[in-house]
This record gives sequence, C-alpha cells and structure tokens, in this order.
Amino acid sequence: MKVGILTGGGDCPGLNAVIRAVVRKAYLENIKVVGIRYGWKGLIEDDVEPLNIESVSGILPKGGTILGTSRTNPYKEKKDAKGRIIRSVKDNIKSIKSTWKKHRLDALIAVGGEDTLGVASRLYKEEKLPIVGVPKTIDNDLSSTDYTFGFDTAINIVTECIDRLHTTAESHNRIMVVEVMGRHAGWIACLGGLAGGADVILVPEIPIDVEWVCNIIKKRHKRGKTFSIVVVAEGAKLKELPKEITIEEKSDEFGHIRLGGIGKILADLIEKKTGFETRVTVLGHIQRGGSPSAFDRILGTRFGIKAVELVMRGKFGYMASLRGNKIVEVPLEKATSKLKTLDMKLYEIAKVFFG
Amino acid sequence: MKVGILTGGGDCPGLNAVIRAVVRKAYLENIKVVGIRYGWKGLIEDDVEPLNIESVSGILPKGGTILGTSRTNPYKEKKDAKGRIIRSVKDNIKSIKSTWKKHRLDALIAVGGEDTLGVASRLYKEEKLPIVGVPKTIDNDLSSTDYTFGFDTAINIVTECIDRLHTTAESHNRIMVVEVMGRHAGWIACLGGLAGGADVILVPEIPIDVEWVCNIIKKRHKRGKTFSIVVVAEGAKLKELPKEITIEEKSDEFGHIRLGGIGKILADLIEKKTGFETRVTVLGHIQRGGSPSAFDRILGTRFGIKAVELVMRGKFGYMASLRGNKIVEVPLEKATSKLKTLDMKLYEIAKVFFG
Amino acid sequence: MKVGILTGGGDCPGLNAVIRAVVRKAYLENIKVVGIRYGWKGLIEDDVEPLNIESVSGILPKGGTILGTSRTNPYKEKKDAKGRIIRSVKDNIKSIKSTWKKHRLDALIAVGGEDTLGVASRLYKEEKLPIVGVPKTIDNDLSSTDYTFGFDTAINIVTECIDRLHTTAESHNRIMVVEVMGRHAGWIACLGGLAGGADVILVPEIPIDVEWVCNIIKKRHKRGKTFSIVVVAEGAKLKELPKEITIEEKSDEFGHIRLGGIGKILADLIEKKTGFETRVTVLGHIQRGGSPSAFDRILGTRFGIKAVELVMRGKFGYMASLRGNKIVEVPLEKATSKLKTLDMKLYEIAKVFFG
Amino acid sequence: MKVGILTGGGDCPGLNAVIRAVVRKAYLENIKVVGIRYGWKGLIEDDVEPLNIESVSGILPKGGTILGTSRTNPYKEKKDAKGRIIRSVKDNIKSIKSTWKKHRLDALIAVGGEDTLGVASRLYKEEKLPIVGVPKTIDNDLSSTDYTFGFDTAINIVTECIDRLHTTAESHNRIMVVEVMGRHAGWIACLGGLAGGADVILVPEIPIDVEWVCNIIKKRHKRGKTFSIVVVAEGAKLKELPKEITIEEKSDEFGHIRLGGIGKILADLIEKKTGFETRVTVLGHIQRGGSPSAFDRILGTRFGIKAVELVMRGKFGYMASLRGNKIVEVPLEKATSKLKTLDMKLYEIAKVFFG
Repeated sequence: MKVGILTGGGDCPGLNAVIRAVVRKAYLENIKVVGIRYGWKGLIEDDVEPLNIESVSGILPKGGTILGTSRTNPYKEKKDAKGRIIRSVKDNIKSIKSTWKKHRLDALIAVGGEDTLGVASRLYKEEKLPIVGVPKTIDNDLSSTDYTFGFDTAINIVTECIDRLHTTAESHNRIMVVEVMGRHAGWIACLGGLAGGADVILVPEIPIDVEWVCNIIKKRHKRGKTFSIVVVAEGAKLKELPKEITIEEKSDEFGHIRLGGIGKILADLIEKKTGFETRVTVLGHIQRGGSPSAFDRILGTRFGIKAVELVMRGKFGYMASLRGNKIVEVPLEKATSKLKTLDMKLYEIAKVFFG
Repeated sequence: MKVGILTGGGDCPGLNAVIRAVVRKAYLENIKVVGIRYGWKGLIEDDVEPLNIESVSGILPKGGTILGTSRTNPYKEKKDAKGRIIRSVKDNIKSIKSTWKKHRLDALIAVGGEDTLGVASRLYKEEKLPIVGVPKTIDNDLSSTDYTFGFDTAINIVTECIDRLHTTAESHNRIMVVEVMGRHAGWIACLGGLAGGADVILVPEIPIDVEWVCNIIKKRHKRGKTFSIVVVAEGAKLKELPKEITIEEKSDEFGHIRLGGIGKILADLIEKKTGFETRVTVLGHIQRGGSPSAFDRILGTRFGIKAVELVMRGKFGYMASLRGNKIVEVPLEKATSKLKTLDMKLYEIAKVFFG
Repeated sequence: MKVGILTGGGDCPGLNAVIRAVVRKAYLENIKVVGIRYGWKGLIEDDVEPLNIESVSGILPKGGTILGTSRTNPYKEKKDAKGRIIRSVKDNIKSIKSTWKKHRLDALIAVGGEDTLGVASRLYKEEKLPIVGVPKTIDNDLSSTDYTFGFDTAINIVTECIDRLHTTAESHNRIMVVEVMGRHAGWIACLGGLAGGADVILVPEIPIDVEWVCNIIKKRHKRGKTFSIVVVAEGAKLKELPKEITIEEKSDEFGHIRLGGIGKILADLIEKKTGFETRVTVLGHIQRGGSPSAFDRILGTRFGIKAVELVMRGKFGYMASLRGNKIVEVPLEKATSKLKTLDMKLYEIAKVFFG
Repeated sequence: MKVGILTGGGDCPGLNAVIRAVVRKAYLENIKVVGIRYGWKGLIEDDVEPLNIESVSGILPKGGTILGTSRTNPYKEKKDAKGRIIRSVKDNIKSIKSTWKKHRLDALIAVGGEDTLGVASRLYKEEKLPIVGVPKTIDNDLSSTDYTFGFDTAINIVTECIDRLHTTAESHNRIMVVEVMGRHAGWIACLGGLAGGADVILVPEIPIDVEWVCNIIKKRHKRGKTFSIVVVAEGAKLKELPKEITIEEKSDEFGHIRLGGIGKILADLIEKKTGFETRVTVLGHIQRGGSPSAFDRILGTRFGIKAVELVMRGKFGYMASLRGNKIVEVPLEKATSKLKTLDMKLYEIAKVFFG
C-alpha cells in the first residue's frame, strides 16, 4: 500500500508533527509514504519524494513544513500576465490523475485549511480519488473541529509579546495597540488577549466602536492605570469611519503589503481622542513561525495517526477532528461549509477584564 | 456579599489567574473578596486579607500563588514532636467557623487538589458551609475535569527540556533518562514525552519491564540511532527488582528528599544491560514554577469566573470543571472520589514512536 | 547620606537591575535612597518616593523601570499648543534645585542615554550638582562603554524572531524582510542578524544598494535556497531612490507613527526587482520589552553598584562604563560627545554569510 | 588547501556556529573542509566526512555538534576490561598521522577544552602537525580568553530556572537549593545566581560554611522573607563535614552517576539546622543543551572565522581568544596551563545581595 501526503495553504507550527506521525504509523503498518511538495502544486507538477522514518527524524520541534506549501488551487485556472489561460482546471485535474497513477498511490492525505480541504472534498466527490483530510488553520476558524494545531503556539506567542509590551507600556504611560492575526475570526485576538491580560480586545465579529474603546482607556486612567494594552484582530473593522481621517487606498502599487492596517488606524484615533501617547505593534509573521507548543505537537501527532487509520479503514472523504478529548472523524464537506467564528462566551469572559 | 478564596496543596502555574478572575468578576458584581493565606491554615489561624482589583493587578503572568499555600488539612490533628495532640480536628473546625463568622463570609472558593477539595466537600456536607471548588493538580489526575491548569505549562517545560537534552544526547551518543512529575498517573510523562519525541515513555500505570526498554534502545542503535531519550514518571515502578542491584532504603535521615529515585535506578540498569553510556536528569521543581502558558492562564481565568457564578447561583458543594470546550459544574464529592489515570489511547499513540 | 535615582529616555530591560543594585548597595552602606519618577520630569515636578530593599524585592526579572521614564529634558522649554512658553529652562533648573533641596539630596544617579546623560553633564558642570551617570541605550550606540544593558536582550529577541521567520520563509519560498531597531547605528541589525543567520544585513552606516541586495538573493536561489532573510535597521537609507516608487511623506497627520518605513519600501523593491514573493515584519516595541537576559541583569547590577561607589568616592561628573571585563569610570561629557557606530569588523564577519 | 575540523570534550551550545563559520569562511577562500567525527577518536579511526556550505545550512540555532564529540585522548592508552593495553599512545599517534596523510590535510582546527587543546598543543609541538585551536568550555574556566561560547547560554538557562523556582519557593515558604554546573570554578553559579537573584551563592573557590549560610537565611526570615534561593556549584565543598551526617561513598556501583551530590547534602543540613522546609533541584544536563544564545552564536562564529584566518596566516600552535571586544590569538600552551577561577570581584558583587 502507498499513501501520498501534502501540506497546503499558510504554514503552521505542527505540520511536521503530522508528517512525522503519518510516516511512523505507516511504517508500523507496512504502508509506503511519498511526500508531495508544495501542496496541490506538487501533485500537478509531479514534485514527489519518498518519505521514510529517517526523513522525519528530528522534525518534531521544527516549525513550518518539510514538504513546503503553496496556495495553488487546481480548481482555479492559471493565467499569464495578459490574462490568457496557461493551465485550465481540466489540465490540472488531468495532471493530478497522471501523477497519482505514475506513483501508484492508494490514497492521499491532504493537510490544509478551508481551501485545501475544499479541493480534497471535490477531488474525492467528483473524481472519486481516495483522499482523507487533516484540518489546519492557525486562526482556529475551521468548523467541525474544536481546535487546530498552530493555534496554541500562536496564542502563546501573542501572550509572550503582550507580556513584553506591558513593561514598556507601563514605564512610558502609553497605550499599546497590538495587531494580531485573524482575518475573519477573533480567536487569536480574544484568547491571546485574555491570556496576555489585555485591557480591550477587538475582534472581526463585532464592529469597533472607538468611543467605547476610548472610554475604557479613560476609565483606567482615572483609577491610576496610565497605560493600556489594546489587542485588535487584523480583520476587525470600524463601526463607522470617523471624519477626522481619510484612509487612503490600502492596496499599494505592489498589491499586497499592507502594513499599518487597522492597528495603525486605531492607534491614531485613540491618540487623537484621548490625548494619550499611543504606539502600535503589528505582530505579523512571527505568530506562525517557530517551534510548536507541546499541545500543537501532540494534536498534530494525533491527527496524523488518525489520518493513517482513516486510510486503512477506507474512510475516504473524511477528515480527522478533535472533539473534547477525543479524535474523531467528520465528512470533509462539513468542515469547509462554514466559518467557525469566535465563541461569544469567551468574549464575555474577556470583557470582565476590560477597563 | 463577601466571598473568601484560598489556595491549598502544591503550587501550580495558573493559580494567580484564578484569583485575579475571582476578584475581577466579583468587582463587577459588587461582591467583596477576602484572600485567605496559606490554604486551610489561614482559615484556622485567621490569616486573612482583603483583595481588590489593585491587589490582583499584574499577577496574571506570575507563577505560584499570591495567597501562599500549605498542605494543612483541618481533618488531620496536629501533633507535636512527641506525638501529643496540639490541635484536634474539633479545634480546627471550631477555628474555621470562628474565622468565617468574624469576617462575615457568605461563601468560600477553595482552589486545590484531591486533598483540599476533599476538605471542602466535608465542610460543605458536615458543617453546611457554603463552599464551591476550583480543581487544581499539575499532574492532571483529578476526575471530573478534562484538564486542570498547570498541566499544560508543565508539559511545555518538559518538552523544552527534552528538546535541550536531545542535542546533547545526540552529540555524545548517550542514553538520557529524564525523570518527570507524576506520582500516581503518567499524564505528564506521556504527553511531555510524546511532544518531546521521546523514544520510550514509562508511566506509573504500567510496571517497567527493563528488558523491553533495553530492546527498544538496542533496536534504535541497530538502525543507526546511537542516542535515545527515555522519559519516566517519578511514580513508575519496576516490574521486578533485578538481582544486580540492591536498592537501599529510599527515605533518608531527613525523611523527604528523594533524589535519584526511579530515574537513577533505571539509568543504572540500562547502562549495565546495554553497555551504552547513560545519564539521568531529574526535572524536579522547575516543572511547576514560572509563568503559566496561555492555555493555563485562560483555563484558570475561566474557572475563577465560573466559581463566582456558582457562588451567585448558590450552587454550593459544586466545583468548576472543563468538559470539551465548555466550563461546567460537577459535585465536589465526585471530583475527589477517584484518581484519573492516563488515557491508554494516548499511550498507544506514544508507542507508535518507541524505537 | 541620601541619594536620588532617576531613569530617563526609552525604557530598556535591565533598568530595574540598576535600581535594585543601587538600593541594595546603598542599604549596606547606610545610604538612603529616593526614587525620582519619570526621569527629569520627576525632579522638576517633585515626584519622589523613598526606596528601600522591600521596594526592589522581586524586580530583577522585570522589564521596564519601576520608576517610570519620560523624555522630558529640562534644557528644552515647554510650550503649549500655540507655541507659547509654559515653562522656561530657567524655571526647570530652579524647580530641580528646589526638589533637590527639599529632599536634602547629597547626590543623584541619572540612568539614561545620550539625552539624559547630556542633561546630567550640564547640571553637574553648570549648576555644580553632584551627579553620577549610568549609561543606557538599547541601540548600543553610546561612546565610552563596550556595551549597555538592554542590547543583549534585544539581540536575543531579534534572533528568536528570525529563527521563527526562517521556518515560515522556507516553507513558502519567500523573502522575509525584518526591520529591527537602530536609528543611527547598526548594532542590533548586525549582531541580531548574524546570530539569526540572516542572508543580508543592512545598516544605517552604509547606504543600501538594492541591486546588490537583489543579486545576493538571486545567487542564493541559484544554489537552491529559494528563501532569504533580509535584516534591515530602521535607520538604514537607500543609496538612491528608485524611480519605480514615489515615497509619500512619512510623517502622518499624527506626526509619529511611522510603520511601513524602510522595511516595507525595501520589501516592495525586492519583490519588484526579483519577482520573488516578499514579506515584511517590523519587530517594533517587542524588542525593548520583557524580562532581561542574564547578561543584562548582571551588567545593570554591576553598573548600579559602581554608581553608588562613585557617589561614595565623590566622583561626580563620571559614569559607570564597561571596558572588557571590567567596570570602570569615564567622564560624563565624553560619553555623550559622539555616537558609537557599528564596528565594521563585525559587519565584515556578517558579510561572510551573505548569499 | 584542505582543512580538517573536530570537536572534542563535553558538548556546548555554539559548537555548530564554529563549524558553520569555518566552512563558510573557507568556502570564500577556496579552502576545502573535512569534518572529523567524535573528536580525536575520528582522527585515530579515520571517521571523516567532507563538509560544504550545504552541510552547515540551518545548523546555527542547533545545540550540540553535528560532528559528534568524545573524550578520547590519544595520549592515553586504551585498555580492555582486564587492564591490558589494546591501543598504545604510539599506535594512536601513528593512526592520526596516517588519517592526516590519507586525507591530505594542510591543517586542523581543534575545538575543545583543556583536554582537547592540550592534545592539540602536544601534537603541534611534538609531531609538528599544523593545528590551530578554538577554546570551548561551558564552565568558562579556561585561561587566555575572557569568555567561551556556551557559558552565556548556560547562565541564561540557570537564570530562567531560578526565576521559575522563585515563584514556587515563595508560595510554599521554602528554601530552594539549586545545584548548577562548575566542577572547579564558580562562574556559572556566581553569574547565574546573580542574574537569578539568588540569596546565597556557593562556589568551589570558597569552602562552604553551613552556619554562615543558615544565618543568612534566618536573617531573611526575620525581615519577612520566608523563602530563599541557594545556588551551589556542583564542585563546591563543605568547610567541615558536620557530625550529623555520614555521607556514604558517592561513587556507586556504576561509577559515575552521582545525583544528590553537594546540593542534596546542603539541603539536608539547612533543613536540619534552620527547621525550614528545604528542597533541592539539580539542573544537570539541561544547562548544556538547546539552542545557543545570541552571544554564543556570535562568539562561536567569530572564533570559527578567526581559526580559518590563523590557518591562512600559518599561525599554528595558536588559538582564537576573546579579549574585551576583540578576537585575538594566544599560544595553545598558554590556554591550557592553568584554570581560570572565578573573578572574586564578581563574587563580592553577588554578596551585596546575600540575605
């Protein structure tokens, strides 16, 4: 028996734990494993390497993914600069099947988020390819699983950074705005902020009322707390755009680098409205890098072993998932059907500490 | 309304998160809080201080407990050096009630493990004192809750230490035996070892078969892995005592310091039987000290808020508990009725990586 | 005898080590200590508190400064919004002398950078106030001392962040531009980059030649290294402004928040010129926060003790300084006379690893 | 030109930085490099591998040494269990020369401590082999260099561990004895203890007076500090053996594992004499493992580059050395002529904080 494994989408601490677990479990079960490099791209372009227990020795503490990753989606056609199609969806599917056949794969384990697992689900349903999934999102916004690996590492990094910023904020009597990851969901902001002892937390699920934020900060000042930490998710939005500022078009000439997003805007507004010195820190990519936490190493390992078990039982079209303390299986299509936004009960808990 | 809070038993990262959450939640609900110092000892000896939101400012990242802790159990009489009773159980109960009355407490939040919560349960049942509990055990061996705070920090420390030992073991071709906490249950050994990539893990739940351990190590050597990491819980026991060694009585003149326990014995046996250079490291107290992980800060916070809610709802004789993603309540007596030993499914997962 | 101590300028890990050492050493020598809050501001506004060994208990591992800090310079007059002078330099000097007299100070220990020590130097020379100095700059750009505390912590944080970014850069085949502190000198960029294994390091001392940078990156790609880490000091400048981009005025409406400085500009240019996906991370304030490294705690402690010794010996107008392994004394005016730019021999060493 | 490199003695964070720097610098200078595995053992047994810039890619953050290490000393004959000589010194020297010739080495870079560099010095002087040295000792007790890499990492680990132990000591009102590395010199104990805020520090240079230690602890109790941290170097010795305890022979059946050394003895004595609850933690091997600090990565890198320069300049019989901020060269024989014990001025500074 021979199984392929690929990792797609943004990288995440814990991916190597999954790969290692798949290879070690497969080794015990006499299953061969091949690694497909750079996600679906490797399957389209036949970029494949055999993996054995030596290949995965010592990778558990490492961040990132030894297989590399990409955002290539075979269901999106590839165009050149002038907009002409270079590679159609049909071409992609054909290439995938050809690579699959060439390497005589009996199954594929796809590790990824909404996008990667969406592709896995379609390939399983439409092309009858025997695929199982492992959920991955650092933002923790994937349905059908309690947690995904990478998230615990991210909130530990956020917490450590907020601990650092606390001492400098306090020494300078400053407001510190900390922009963290979370485009669509406030999990990292809420739990990282809660653990870091943030004085206000702002999430994409609730439009930001700047007056309310400033009132919390002013209230703190009144009781002698002349510094505050405001955590804001990158995807949080203002309730209404204040007249004071005109926000220039955010997409620059190069299209993608968007520093000084909501964090900077918010810091400007807070300083203007309260008169307190305010600084912004955008945590950025350090949140997803580095050695995974114990929790993420264990979760990735358990997911990897579950994936091999699903393959052995022929449970294709399913993915591993955490429910309470248990690893269970859920249909792939369920996982990608909707976004898991922040549990508002957790936000209520965070609010106890606002001000 | 006025609530007391105490922390008993061994200290644990996350205790201050509980205390802070209780005080902050109580503040919002117009409940006064007093801290009782050094666990039940403070209630017996009237060692009490008022707590307000200033008292708990900045304590979230701190290990230990600002209230101090002790192992005093009011249901055990206190004797002097000659064995004469200085303080009877009856005296203790009387003192507790007197302190309670003096400070006009309406309720008590007892944060602790099996012992502390056992006292809480009896005081509630036998003396009708309105008490709620918050479970605490770094070993994660308390029934009725999925996890307790402190445990995640402990396994992160174990993981980091194993990461460190890996590089030195590898450079020297050594076997490294790492003795970790866990007197009765193998949670820390199993999950810390799993996350650290241990080559063998030994837990109190399964008697140690030294031959089996040595065979795993020898098998690794055969495939070129000339170093190994063996994680052993302090409470693990040998299946049979080999004739080669006579183990001298472990309790020394001073009765309590017992370094060089199972870790040292095991290292000696492995070196003797395999001929490979072997070293032992006893992690000891560093596992329970220091700044809590994000997970433990959040869990402690959620438990603290739940405890205040239980008080407000008059749910005495209950304690906060984690079930999956939710904080629920369970009867105190249920929590202390039996030990939660290691989930053997997790040990099966760890075994995939042995050898 | 009675000594005042103040901390001025940007905060720095290790400031509390200095304060603690001053108080502990003074305690042994029967010298009283008062803390002056928020730098020179506290001396002008009589914001003073007594410090004893209890005040400094437990502060060694803490970042920031328990005394608070500010950028108030008594030799700069304070103006209101309309530009009218509220407080003249003369007023400031008068207030300083009045506070000094009121608290019967025998000497002052001023801990700070170029600005703070410049004030100290003038007050000593012009007003004959008995002041000794302790040098502080996280950027390590102060003359007359080999190192200043805070710098070692900063480069450790930069190193750890680069380690994190490495795994994500590698997984995604990306160029990562990391903007670090250093307005006038490249110490943090050079040593943090060297320790983090950066592939290019750019410092204020040498104008940036973007072609040269891109060629290094391209050369790496040719030998199969499809990711690169570029470290750039915030104060580094482009050799020439490429026509491709027009850089809008950097000082925004609020005057000070300048995210997306050289790091962003550089990332844009690299992506445009090489075609490789490029991301930027601005480390910002996390570089100066948090618990000081062992080196910085020790250096701060040694400086603090030296400062008290200087006071006892009546060596006013001098500051503590590190020379090799020894703590020596140097005249204050020497310390602030010129900037200590990066030792170019270290940059030569860093260049060995470029490409 | 072709250069060999070997690492001998105990492993140390920073060894990989040296190896990487040697290979990268040699690459620029068109010098070939071969790695000799397991120190002198590899030179005797012809265990040699070519090293190129790919071999050293990504090793900078890793602890240990990719070349492996051993304590093999060619000037000591190898005996079998019955004491018969298997390999004479003459055989060893012959083998070394034969391996040297076979690989056509033009020079050798020996990285190690007193023992390894002593061999290097003799081989250079007696056999005229062109060897240069790089000093390595985690204990910082090597003459002729201000610091060695590994030491900074070790004191950072000790500091972090003491920080952890502080919170648990404080919560429980306990005395914590922490045994750290340092067989002959108190560098790690003194500087790690100073940075960790230890209340007493005991070093091999000064025999331990237990009464004095207990008096310091009792004094602390009197001023309300009911916990204390005592740091003791593993090589520290008691001034006189108290009658209360008979210390059983420390070398056990297996000869080498000696847990519960001075740390445990001291803890027992303190508890007995003061009546305060006392615990011991032996930090052991975690002090030498793991990712090197920024300082050690930089120092190792500078040493490696200097070693190649020495080779290029034909400066054999010399080693790289740190003097103040500069890397200089010193004769090998000078380095190994005497032990560098603790600078007593640093101990005087530490004493300011005792009690």
